Amino acid sequence: MSPLPIEQLFLMLALLWLAAAVFGAIAGRLGIPPVIGELACGLLLGPSLLGWVEPAPTLKALAEIGVVLLLFEVGMETDLRRLARSGGQSLAVAMIGFLLPFALGYAVASWLFGLSTPVSLFVGGTLTATSIGITVRVLGDLGRKNSEEAQIIIGAAVLDDVLGVIALALLAQFAQAGEVSIDGAARIALFVLVFLLAAPVAAKLVAGIISRIAARTDAPALQLALVVSTILAFGALAHLMGAPVILGGFAAGLAFSPCFRLSPPKDVRMPFAGLLRSAFHTDTEFSHDVERMVRPLTHLFAPVFFVLVGVSMDLTQVDWRDPGFLWLLGSLLAVAVAGKWVAGFVLRKPPLIKHAVGLAMVPRGEVGLIFIQVGASLGLLDARIGAALLVVVAITTLLPPIALKLLYRFTTKETT
Amino acid sequence: MSPLPIEQLFLMLALLWLAAAVFGAIAGRLGIPPVIGELACGLLLGPSLLGWVEPAPTLKALAEIGVVLLLFEVGMETDLRRLARSGGQSLAVAMIGFLLPFALGYAVASWLFGLSTPVSLFVGGTLTATSIGITVRVLGDLGRKNSEEAQIIIGAAVLDDVLGVIALALLAQFAQAGEVSIDGAARIALFVLVFLLAAPVAAKLVAGIISRIAARTDAPALQLALVVSTILAFGALAHLMGAPVILGGFAAGLAFSPCFRLSPPKDVRMPFAGLLRSAFHTDTEFSHDVERMVRPLTHLFAPVFFVLVGVSMDLTQVDWRDPGFLWLLGSLLAVAVAGKWVAGFVLRKPPLIKHAVGLAMVPRGEVGLIFIQVGASLGLLDARIGAALLVVVAITTLLPPIALKLLYRFTTKETT
Repeated sequence: MSPLPIEQLFLMLALLWLAAAVFGAIAGRLGIPPVIGELACGLLLGPSLLGWVEPAPTLKALAEIGVVLLLFEVGMETDLRRLARSGGQSLAVAMIGFLLPFALGYAVASWLFGLSTPVSLFVGGTLTATSIGITVRVLGDLGRKNSEEAQIIIGAAVLDDVLGVIALALLAQFAQAGEVSIDGAARIALFVLVFLLAAPVAAKLVAGIISRIAARTDAPALQLALVVSTILAFGALAHLMGAPVILGGFAAGLAFSPCFRLSPPKDVRMPFAGLLRSAFHTDTEFSHDVERMVRPLTHLFAPVFFVLVGVSMDLTQVDWRDPGFLWLLGSLLAVAVAGKWVAGFVLRKPPLIKHAVGLAMVPRGEVGLIFIQVGASLGLLDARIGAALLVVVAITTLLPPIALKLLYRFTTKETT
Repeated sequence: MSPLPIEQLFLMLALLWLAAAVFGAIAGRLGIPPVIGELACGLLLGPSLLGWVEPAPTLKALAEIGVVLLLFEVGMETDLRRLARSGGQSLAVAMIGFLLPFALGYAVASWLFGLSTPVSLFVGGTLTATSIGITVRVLGDLGRKNSEEAQIIIGAAVLDDVLGVIALALLAQFAQAGEVSIDGAARIALFVLVFLLAAPVAAKLVAGIISRIAARTDAPALQLALVVSTILAFGALAHLMGAPVILGGFAAGLAFSPCFRLSPPKDVRMPFAGLLRSAFHTDTEFSHDVERMVRPLTHLFAPVFFVLVGVSMDLTQVDWRDPGFLWLLGSLLAVAVAGKWVAGFVLRKPPLIKHAVGLAMVPRGEVGLIFIQVGASLGLLDARIGAALLVVVAITTLLPPIALKLLYRFTTKETT
């Protein structure tokens, strides 16, 4: 029989959605990213405070569906051509913003606090995260979404995402193998790279088929079922390749994006051009239909993930007045902020742009939470380290938007 | 840890949605109700044939969410005022069409085949079902949706639905208590009736609150989360009252329906009229918004339920050439068809209308499948009886649309 009676599951889900909606709305009013509201809601409903919701298997499954759909949406919003255009500068920022927090996080965890190698690697990995979603929203709020720095930032954030999922795949494998081997790492990195290159192509073929079915039948229910199956199937496929399921959602999202074209342009002559054109063709209209259909599902299920991150943490197990804990928290926070901020300084640009790019990369947001959740479910992060990382993610997500607003306000005053 | 690894769950869900979409589309082409296509898909994927999908707890939970959302939609489409208008005649058809199949089904199961009392009651109960959805679609296909007989049929089908969920609540309680007591039955019937009267009023209050929130904020995600929480909470509430969770979905659906008004009209003077008006007020626009938001979810999750009905059955355990089984099947089928058909004859109307009303009530569709699933999950229906009922539901759902078409064709020929 079911491990949780259906009426209890219904009550928990109803409570979770109600509370997440209320907290999300309050966060929205206060100008805080909703994901932080949902995290707070999870801490409230979970063992840290009320203990009304437990991370039951079915809730976890819904959360996984939610996060895969979220990464699908991130993939759909990723513009690979734009990435190529802002190329070199974004790549430099992304690499530094990835390597520096990783190395510093690892160093703090391993050398200052004597944590084991897999745990220290995971701490470093969590600090590499960049939340494209929050970054883009902040730039939009400031009316700088199409500025020069925004181009660089978005490009770097996308690259950080790709680097992040590769890192997550590697770390998860290390944790399960229990040791760090260069051979194993190379093999996994290769698998993940092959997946990242091949999966969008395969998913684009599927998208072409669905788009042709959609053009012939007027059945949105059928389309939605086919799109969601594709997303989940690529999630499962990613797992088979040793990557996290979210990478499958991201790859499928890239393929369904209106910016992802594999069909050769009409004026190009090449063998099988006609065949390729018809196999890989999806039009922009179709991409927007898919986005419109999937969005309500993402809105409903992604918060389940973020609430569950909060529910999975038991903050009562942490001694908040313990100086050791506060040192850990403080030093991780310092390297988390510094590592990304400094990355902006590799650019040969005016100080405003250097600072803006660096600060905009600081929010870990949902990507940081995904790292924490994977680490916790692998048994790597105990209550103390989990709590420290959670606070780091929350603060790095909350402060930069405010810092950026102040930065722009002062700089604009000076120049006018 | 999760009882089913996440990648296996993803694969099963992807397979289930893909197959359900394909089978549903094929059924649509052939003019067969999609629910029969989804059932066939479940038989294909389950232990009866391929054995690729198992009824894992998480899949069951998604199926339950699907069926509660489906009953919410049925509730939203229920027009209580129309029901009152076609009143007497519908009531007569519904009562006969409920009592006759129930009594005959019980008699066949208990007297002819010597099945135990709870099992026989469940067999009778399954035969009482009427599928409003299929009935309405058939009438629409024939262009008779606004005819006199359609009014009577839809009214009777709605009443049969209400009687059906009460019967299901009673039967489930009997089955769990293991005995049939008049006292217990009266208490449960009272509880269920109180729930059916009070829940829509309570849900209407909630609908009023959500409608006011919706009017002030432009956040469809917030609205959807609130509506879905309400539906699930009423499902859990129904279970607390001893009724099946689907009854909660139905009650919430009634409350969100554009036809369900509790606010006193403007020209009525009564105490607290202003307060009642503002508390219970929701406009038609809001109802349509809710319907539009919930429909994609229903389309996605309801098929999970019908596929799982097929997956839960193992037809290989049934000896299809056993004369005893064929007798059981044949006699249940006979009383299933006769019991509803005869109900049309209580009307004092021309023969065309009598036959049309009777035949239109025959399809059991999704309601019959809900009975079978509940009975099977309570351990009442073994493979043999489950299979017999499944075939009865399939045939009674498939044949009447064809019979009705022929009936109208011949009658129209005669009169012209």
